[in-house]
Amino acid sequence: MSFDSSPDFAKSLDRQDKLASYRDRFFISDQDMIYMDGNSLGRLPLATSQRVNEIIMKEWGENLIRSWGQGWFEAPIRVGEKIAGLVGADHGQVAVSDSTTVNLYKLAMSALMLRPERKKIITDTLNFPSDLYMLQGCSHVLGGKHTIQMLEPADGLRVDTQTVLDAIDSNTALVALSHVVFKSGYMYDAKTITQYAHQKGALVLWDLSHSVGSVPVELDDWNADFATGCTYKYLNGGPGAPAFLYVRNGLQKEALSPIWGWFGERAPFSFELGYTPAQGIQRFLCGTPPVLSVLAMEPGVDLMLEAGIQPLRAKSIQLSNYLMALFDANLAPLGFSLGTPREVEQRGSHVSLRHPDAYQINRALIEEMNVIPDFREPDNIRLGLAPMYTSFHDVWEVVNRIERVITEKRYLRFPATRLSVT
Amino acid sequence: MSFDSSPDFAKSLDRQDKLASYRDRFFISDQDMIYMDGNSLGRLPLATSQRVNEIIMKEWGENLIRSWGQGWFEAPIRVGEKIAGLVGADHGQVAVSDSTTVNLYKLAMSALMLRPERKKIITDTLNFPSDLYMLQGCSHVLGGKHTIQMLEPADGLRVDTQTVLDAIDSNTALVALSHVVFKSGYMYDAKTITQYAHQKGALVLWDLSHSVGSVPVELDDWNADFATGCTYKYLNGGPGAPAFLYVRNGLQKEALSPIWGWFGERAPFSFELGYTPAQGIQRFLCGTPPVLSVLAMEPGVDLMLEAGIQPLRAKSIQLSNYLMALFDANLAPLGFSLGTPREVEQRGSHVSLRHPDAYQINRALIEEMNVIPDFREPDNIRLGLAPMYTSFHDVWEVVNRIERVITEKRYLRFPATRLSVT
Repeated sequence: MSFDSSPDFAKSLDRQDKLASYRDRFFISDQDMIYMDGNSLGRLPLATSQRVNEIIMKEWGENLIRSWGQGWFEAPIRVGEKIAGLVGADHGQVAVSDSTTVNLYKLAMSALMLRPERKKIITDTLNFPSDLYMLQGCSHVLGGKHTIQMLEPADGLRVDTQTVLDAIDSNTALVALSHVVFKSGYMYDAKTITQYAHQKGALVLWDLSHSVGSVPVELDDWNADFATGCTYKYLNGGPGAPAFLYVRNGLQKEALSPIWGWFGERAPFSFELGYTPAQGIQRFLCGTPPVLSVLAMEPGVDLMLEAGIQPLRAKSIQLSNYLMALFDANLAPLGFSLGTPREVEQRGSHVSLRHPDAYQINRALIEEMNVIPDFREPDNIRLGLAPMYTSFHDVWEVVNRIERVITEKRYLRFPATRLSVT
Repeated sequence: MSFDSSPDFAKSLDRQDKLASYRDRFFISDQDMIYMDGNSLGRLPLATSQRVNEIIMKEWGENLIRSWGQGWFEAPIRVGEKIAGLVGADHGQVAVSDSTTVNLYKLAMSALMLRPERKKIITDTLNFPSDLYMLQGCSHVLGGKHTIQMLEPADGLRVDTQTVLDAIDSNTALVALSHVVFKSGYMYDAKTITQYAHQKGALVLWDLSHSVGSVPVELDDWNADFATGCTYKYLNGGPGAPAFLYVRNGLQKEALSPIWGWFGERAPFSFELGYTPAQGIQRFLCGTPPVLSVLAMEPGVDLMLEAGIQPLRAKSIQLSNYLMALFDANLAPLGFSLGTPREVEQRGSHVSLRHPDAYQINRALIEEMNVIPDFREPDNIRLGLAPMYTSFHDVWEVVNRIERVITEKRYLRFPATRLSVT
């Protein structure tokens, strides 16, 4: 396409967008507000608000405990099977359960217990801190005998695939990485890393929080061992909605969660005194699931399946290419640098813009410009391009409003001192 | 009171019941249906349905990610502080987090890591199986060197306090019990057991799932170490609502959760690469909480605080005494035996009726008599008396309908073969 930086050009892209109508499937109370944080908390699908009302009034209020026998009990597996369709997983390998951190713990502990003689864990400094903390905790629980090697990005944005491969050796139990990393949006070559790790006898755990619903994920094709990810980002599952987890079929017999609970037991309602893990992915469940949050995520997942991950990815690439073109034309001259790799195959669906005054710019965008991006230390303004509802005109608008924050010196009205969230 | 078994007597008790009006604060779609399962899934408070609508439309739909800074982030601690008022805990010791099983795991692992040289765990066969499974999993993770001693009830209903004390020795790391047990409703003397365990250098973990909201719990007075419990039973928090956990102030500096996640970190939004646990109870949080489920439980907790645990307990005792009087008069002659201790100080708020044909009777109650009790293997019909909304007339009705199932031989219409839930 021949690019120009006018708003009319953005509108012409929107007119050609085959997914454009999906925006109308979401609750949008303020059409002027530019929401660029769908990679942190996805928007509310209209179907979800109806569904929640039904769950509350009919399933809880009216049917009460009987609802456990009318869909609640199976919900973690049933919704998991739907998510499987978004991550390239065949039946029986995905379930919804607990938070991403708890799932990371269950899966990493499983892996480490499967490779007890190996004492090295490989991750990187680009990984989400909760993932790193969890690995440190696993090492602590297992007696502190593991070394956690944190690879560093040479250019600040990415760790080369070869650097990861070089680190994997015969002492490596586990490689645990975010497929798409949370700051720069860098996307790893998951298949190459997984295959090489297997050659060396190591297991691999992928955090798909910033991948699922935005980029094609092919867990079975990668021959991935373990994976988990958030459902409240691109899947629009609702705030803090439980995560999903994946364990490869071939590992399910030997792999064991460290947390043994009744939802993972062979026959939960027999109330046997000794634990016998269920067959299949169910053994990775543990306690009673938060039904309301599990069921409320389903309409968001359904929307994703309806739109299709390939069209979503195609639009996501178009959106980010367009954003980068506008960046080159209008933002680079204002002191911004790109915090995301330019290569399409090396990035997910969010783009980071770096600027020495990013913290103040971010606050001005929120408080004066009706834009919601998010800020990640030390200097990243992160723009989440959620292809389900982000329009090309949104992208044009956000760049235009960023320009105005700089040229009108609005960011200087805000102190650089960080506000504490707590 | 001079007891008689007429329905008029039940109605006269309801007229004297100072908590009677709380029933109107719940959504009750079928006034003829007798709900005796409030100890498994509490009813829907009317305030909850309004609140959920606000969370969905306003907090998620409209405010989006900004809501994290407007109450969501603090919700696990804020709601925890409210629950603290129901379990006799001073500030800073209770939080809402994860499922009961995951919390049991975090707390038991903490305890076992605090007593690494001790290799005995004491529990009983009355404990909820998920609690037992979790203990078995902890032992597995820690290398299989622990012995789990499961005490057995001499009379099928209860394990004498002295039996527990006798089992605690200098090799005991942890005593993990349900305060009120799930089948018989037997209630332990928690203070005596905790104090004796401390004398022997052991730690104690109380599962309060069947206690909180129905019996007075005095964690600080007991000098309890660790506790957790469900919020979806007597607290009416909603299906699978996250559990709460308690860690005694004096233990919080040394105790560490095995699951290290960003919500338990000192400064979650600094994104430091190394984990430093937060001060206080926050260090026992791990991943992003299921906001919808956390916030939806709050109106139920508020109702409990408003009614007061002492009046609730007084009514619960009245209800169960009344049920036992009707049992003696009308059900014992029909082949039932009481599966719950008669001593008031030894029981919670549910009553088990045992019968050789209990499974079939239970099905007939559900399918023909518009009663919802629940069945627990091998022969328990469990009647949950939730003092917030169970009326004396409900109790009269359920006994009357049980009688009819027997005298009209309705239970014979149902096979004794168990239906599988899965």
